[in-house]
Amino acid sequence: MKKLHLLLAIWLLIFYAAGSLFSAPNDEIEKKIQTLLSQMTLKEKVGQMTQITLEVVSLKRPDGSFVNSLDENKLRQAIVEYGIGSIINTGGAANTARNWLEMITIMQKMATQETRLGIPILYGIDAIHGSNYIKEATLFPQSIAMAATFNRQLSRREGEITALETRAVGIPWNFNPVLGLGRNPLWPRFWETYGEDVYLTSEMGRAYILGLQGEDGDISRADRVAACMKHYAGYSFPLSGHDRTPAWIPERLMREMFLTPFKSAVDAGVYTVMINSGEVNGVPAHSSAFLLTRVLREEWGFKGLAVSDWEDVKRLHDRDHVAASPEEAVKMAVMAGLDMSMVPFDFSFAEYLYQLVKKGEVPETRIDDAVANILRVKFQAGLFENPFPDPQRLQLIGKPEFAQVSLSAAREAITLLKNENNILPLQKDVKILVTGPTANSRAYLNGGWTYTWQGDDERYYPAHYKTILQAITEKAGQRNVVYVQGADIETQKDMGEAVQKARDVDVIVACLGEATYCETPGNINDLHLPAVQRELIHQLARTGKPIVLVLVEGRPRVINDIVPKTKGILMAYLPGPYGSEAIAEALFGEVNPSGKLPFTYPKHVNDLVCYDHTYLKEFDVNRYDPQWPFGYGLSYSEFEYRNLKLSQSRIKKGEALQISVEVENRGERAGKESVLLYVSDLYRSVTPPVKQLKGFQKIMLQPGEKRVVTFTLTADDLAFVGRDNQWIVEPGVFKVRIGDQTAQFELVE
Amino acid sequence: MKKLHLLLAIWLLIFYAAGSLFSAPNDEIEKKIQTLLSQMTLKEKVGQMTQITLEVVSLKRPDGSFVNSLDENKLRQAIVEYGIGSIINTGGAANTARNWLEMITIMQKMATQETRLGIPILYGIDAIHGSNYIKEATLFPQSIAMAATFNRQLSRREGEITALETRAVGIPWNFNPVLGLGRNPLWPRFWETYGEDVYLTSEMGRAYILGLQGEDGDISRADRVAACMKHYAGYSFPLSGHDRTPAWIPERLMREMFLTPFKSAVDAGVYTVMINSGEVNGVPAHSSAFLLTRVLREEWGFKGLAVSDWEDVKRLHDRDHVAASPEEAVKMAVMAGLDMSMVPFDFSFAEYLYQLVKKGEVPETRIDDAVANILRVKFQAGLFENPFPDPQRLQLIGKPEFAQVSLSAAREAITLLKNENNILPLQKDVKILVTGPTANSRAYLNGGWTYTWQGDDERYYPAHYKTILQAITEKAGQRNVVYVQGADIETQKDMGEAVQKARDVDVIVACLGEATYCETPGNINDLHLPAVQRELIHQLARTGKPIVLVLVEGRPRVINDIVPKTKGILMAYLPGPYGSEAIAEALFGEVNPSGKLPFTYPKHVNDLVCYDHTYLKEFDVNRYDPQWPFGYGLSYSEFEYRNLKLSQSRIKKGEALQISVEVENRGERAGKESVLLYVSDLYRSVTPPVKQLKGFQKIMLQPGEKRVVTFTLTADDLAFVGRDNQWIVEPGVFKVRIGDQTAQFELVE
Repeated sequence: MKKLHLLLAIWLLIFYAAGSLFSAPNDEIEKKIQTLLSQMTLKEKVGQMTQITLEVVSLKRPDGSFVNSLDENKLRQAIVEYGIGSIINTGGAANTARNWLEMITIMQKMATQETRLGIPILYGIDAIHGSNYIKEATLFPQSIAMAATFNRQLSRREGEITALETRAVGIPWNFNPVLGLGRNPLWPRFWETYGEDVYLTSEMGRAYILGLQGEDGDISRADRVAACMKHYAGYSFPLSGHDRTPAWIPERLMREMFLTPFKSAVDAGVYTVMINSGEVNGVPAHSSAFLLTRVLREEWGFKGLAVSDWEDVKRLHDRDHVAASPEEAVKMAVMAGLDMSMVPFDFSFAEYLYQLVKKGEVPETRIDDAVANILRVKFQAGLFENPFPDPQRLQLIGKPEFAQVSLSAAREAITLLKNENNILPLQKDVKILVTGPTANSRAYLNGGWTYTWQGDDERYYPAHYKTILQAITEKAGQRNVVYVQGADIETQKDMGEAVQKARDVDVIVACLGEATYCETPGNINDLHLPAVQRELIHQLARTGKPIVLVLVEGRPRVINDIVPKTKGILMAYLPGPYGSEAIAEALFGEVNPSGKLPFTYPKHVNDLVCYDHTYLKEFDVNRYDPQWPFGYGLSYSEFEYRNLKLSQSRIKKGEALQISVEVENRGERAGKESVLLYVSDLYRSVTPPVKQLKGFQKIMLQPGEKRVVTFTLTADDLAFVGRDNQWIVEPGVFKVRIGDQTAQFELVE
Repeated sequence: MKKLHLLLAIWLLIFYAAGSLFSAPNDEIEKKIQTLLSQMTLKEKVGQMTQITLEVVSLKRPDGSFVNSLDENKLRQAIVEYGIGSIINTGGAANTARNWLEMITIMQKMATQETRLGIPILYGIDAIHGSNYIKEATLFPQSIAMAATFNRQLSRREGEITALETRAVGIPWNFNPVLGLGRNPLWPRFWETYGEDVYLTSEMGRAYILGLQGEDGDISRADRVAACMKHYAGYSFPLSGHDRTPAWIPERLMREMFLTPFKSAVDAGVYTVMINSGEVNGVPAHSSAFLLTRVLREEWGFKGLAVSDWEDVKRLHDRDHVAASPEEAVKMAVMAGLDMSMVPFDFSFAEYLYQLVKKGEVPETRIDDAVANILRVKFQAGLFENPFPDPQRLQLIGKPEFAQVSLSAAREAITLLKNENNILPLQKDVKILVTGPTANSRAYLNGGWTYTWQGDDERYYPAHYKTILQAITEKAGQRNVVYVQGADIETQKDMGEAVQKARDVDVIVACLGEATYCETPGNINDLHLPAVQRELIHQLARTGKPIVLVLVEGRPRVINDIVPKTKGILMAYLPGPYGSEAIAEALFGEVNPSGKLPFTYPKHVNDLVCYDHTYLKEFDVNRYDPQWPFGYGLSYSEFEYRNLKLSQSRIKKGEALQISVEVENRGERAGKESVLLYVSDLYRSVTPPVKQLKGFQKIMLQPGEKRVVTFTLTADDLAFVGRDNQWIVEPGVFKVRIGDQTAQFELVE
């Protein structure tokens, strides 16, 4: 026991030392910031706080669309005249790496050589699943699929590769990860999240951030970018389910659930934060001093840069009606604690802010604070030393080994939800009808934020990316595969022919799901999978042929009426460009599925409850009756759990508990298993969730192999937010669950 | 202007004088309470705080069901041995008035004559829509329908008649009104509310309470009972939509919306409060010192009795897991501020509480405070002077004039939602197919809390209550009416025959809706009207015959697919026993419909948004797109609004504004119109709702008649709860809307 304490103490020391080393202000940089600030005019300062979109400085075609080429006059106005600090976005669609590099180079030349103080531009972009606005870059499964892997290393690798490819073209800032919790499956940005669980989101997000920024946080390196945790906070849980509509989140649950992944990211050293576009409890986040200053700065000590989301400062006036004029909106946001406004179409923010300071309505100290936060990132990113990308590094983009990481992630994401009588894996010589609206699309595998905002333009997708149909055909052979689309996403299409062809095959692989969407355009009013797709399954089922569903969707669309008509179901989420290959591998058993649902898959459209609901008798009897629960996922192997052991039956605050369990692969195939540790607080002063994820480890086991998996739980892991909205650790009895194994321990004062 | 101020001052003086007269402690009663308290033992005190259900002291049949007859031994144990303070409920179903009177008389005899101090029993009952547990009593439309009348006088009369009939059998306490806001239509108690709006709920609730208790609050009178506002607070808005599941309500919105009707009831002098069975933000209301003490007692000065809901003290332990033992649950609830526990099956509450006081864990001062609150109601109800009902008063129950009030309410509730090409009113000589599962039921017109908890036993319904089919047949004549049920609520039934018969008629009256339900058994997972009923309309529509829908339902079930297939739609809600007559009158034009929706009727199951949503651009473009908005309702007349006038264009805090508008009946029928005043705060420090109801008046206009309707608005009516959770009045510009008329005014400091 003493030895354990000693080890723990040393470990904690190292942890805190590393933490403080990392988050401590770099004196040299702070000096440089102050020197620079002292030289800056007010106009230069408010310019730094202004962010515009690339379109403002791009050449236009006669039809009004944008060429991926800069209009140097407009660029000069922005950079030299207004001294803007940041440019973002694309001219509407993905760009070649070379073109990116050239544009960034021109911008940085102008910023460093033509402005009085030579402050470089901080270019930012949405690299959501890989660097999706660089044509040659590596794309990954979307975050909801990454979460299903329950594999931190894959998230880390995604971050590393995204950073390398993004920085290679000269972009040092990525507006990702989304750390909002995916607790409302109606929300059209659900797939941008890591799902409903606080711990899983925190862990996957942290791993991704460490991937982007490196463990040491040295983003001056040519393969690193600054991460931007978003959207801070509460954006992901709109009451209506529609994007950018009001959220109701009481402070206690805001702190316990929604803020936790952000706090974890701050602890991981995240450099920047983007603010929630919506309102929480009637307070638009962009006007919330509570979020932007009290929690973020004062409680958490965040030293980074807080940037608005698209047009959101203006919206405080024209949408939210909390500011009676555009000028008041600027004052409100800046005084709440915003450092930079994604204006992004004009320079009004700088002009209003200049006047506000002149009139004494915004103190210049607040401006200095904001500009310091901006300059700090520019210094940390090494832009003052070298703002230019190195053309030599372009060749690193899209390396085959990166594609392998993406494929690995897709393989580990795909989740086997049903496998009646082991219909899967399929034999390669069976005759297959491939059908359904997602079977022959590249776009649907990727979703939004792919080459374009909505990701819906198939012309951008490289021809070498396979559709599911192509991947299946490659494995099974042309002669064994028949394809009839059968239905479109929302509308009828050759369903009769699909049914007719079904009669001649051994098995039907029906690929259903969603079209691409992003943000508000993805709003829906009914969580059911569109009726026509369900009708396709009802009709196919009448042939008596076994049906395997492949679900390609960014959120769980309700399918309870067709589940009984199928023998097998593979959830593919939005698995990215190599998802088709992974799906085919899973269907034919080349890959043993190991994904687990990072969210609750609802059975009914008006029964949307997350797994970590609180104890309620009626609730427990009638409720949490999903189609599949959080953490669900089958394998072609069978994993047996045994011998759950706790190092102690009683711990004190400050102590740690070791939990071990033996896992054995009882199947005939090698396979990966995500071992999930759940903890339940039996009684506490606010209603406890029935269980909460507190640890996970993904292991690989050969047939017959067994392994002991160990977790460490500290009293701090048992903390929650009490009635006074403060974190608290309460003594009590706790139940531990891993697989079907349970044990209890007591936490004492 | 000066005159106006003077009048206002006088009016305010009278108002406050009356208010303080009413809410001031009655010194004589307070003295009596203290005298009695000083004589009571601890055991007698905790007995007073205990409430049991009638079943505990009733005779049982061999099969375990209850006879409406008392088991005097058990009664003696409860009253004499335990000294319990209150008994409630029925033995499972409605009872005759005489039997009630006899049972109450026995109880009061025992309590006053066999106990040491002779403290009478406070009997309580759920008289939800009339005194629904007295067989002969008058039943009314359910609250959701009462709200649709927008007629305070009808709510007042309902309260008066309910009080008279309830008190006639000796019951002085009614567990009504429900003041939770019906803002989630999934909630199975939606129909027990006055709908989604704060002001409408406050006004209808206040009128009902004044009906029960009288304007002077003298509940010692033989025609008065103590009201019980419930369920305090936040119960009505479960996140999942299911009964008794967690609500998430931030404090700001809790205060601004959910607490307001309760505050209004306290101001109206309500004597008792029942606590919310659920949890809000992880805090079960029964353990919430914030709700039970800080807000209710300290902020509002409530002097009445706080009673738990059914078994809810125990549930703090066994359901909510906030108390580690049943004893701790008792301590938690009492210390939070609960006065009486609806245990209701045993005496454990008294026993635990006795021990807790003995151990010093609950101070006896808290017990004295609780018992004083209980005794106060008993004194106020005059039970010490005369606890016995007067058999002479039994003949007052169910007087024909009371039925007329119920009928009037049904007439004014029924809401005309669609009337294409004036399909309605029908000519009496048309041939009609009456069809649908709610056409020939008495129970479905009434819903839950009718004779039994679930209201589903048709045998209890008096034969003289008409079904819709009967009422239509009486008006149209047997030979003009064909009836085929066509469908059951959830299942197929002779649909083919209905379609066939439809071919021979001029018009189809399809009565759809819901079966009866109450509380948790009414949970649903899909807000759509059951598919089979919608299928009936689709099939009937193919005949080409015009279809008139009559909706008999306690919550708005989604019907967007069938609305276009109908010519006319009448929303009947749960209109009570005379609803059938009112429906038939409306169909044939004997009554001109004047109801308006007290809630938003959603178009889609996953688009549940209330009318007073906040400004959001995407929201306004894409959202609030209901089937019918709050306040919607057609008439057979046409009402024109003109000349909206404000007494001033600018008011100061403390001043009042007169708003007048001219309304003219431009139709050819006399009709009632609810004139609704909406106000919008254009900009404020928290996002303003797009509009909010701030006044309503129901007027009757003959054809061609016009009338000027006047409202008074004070600065206090413009208050809202700010970011610091405090009520605030902010200067700014406000927009007034009545009908299609708008005007603006400014509030200045």
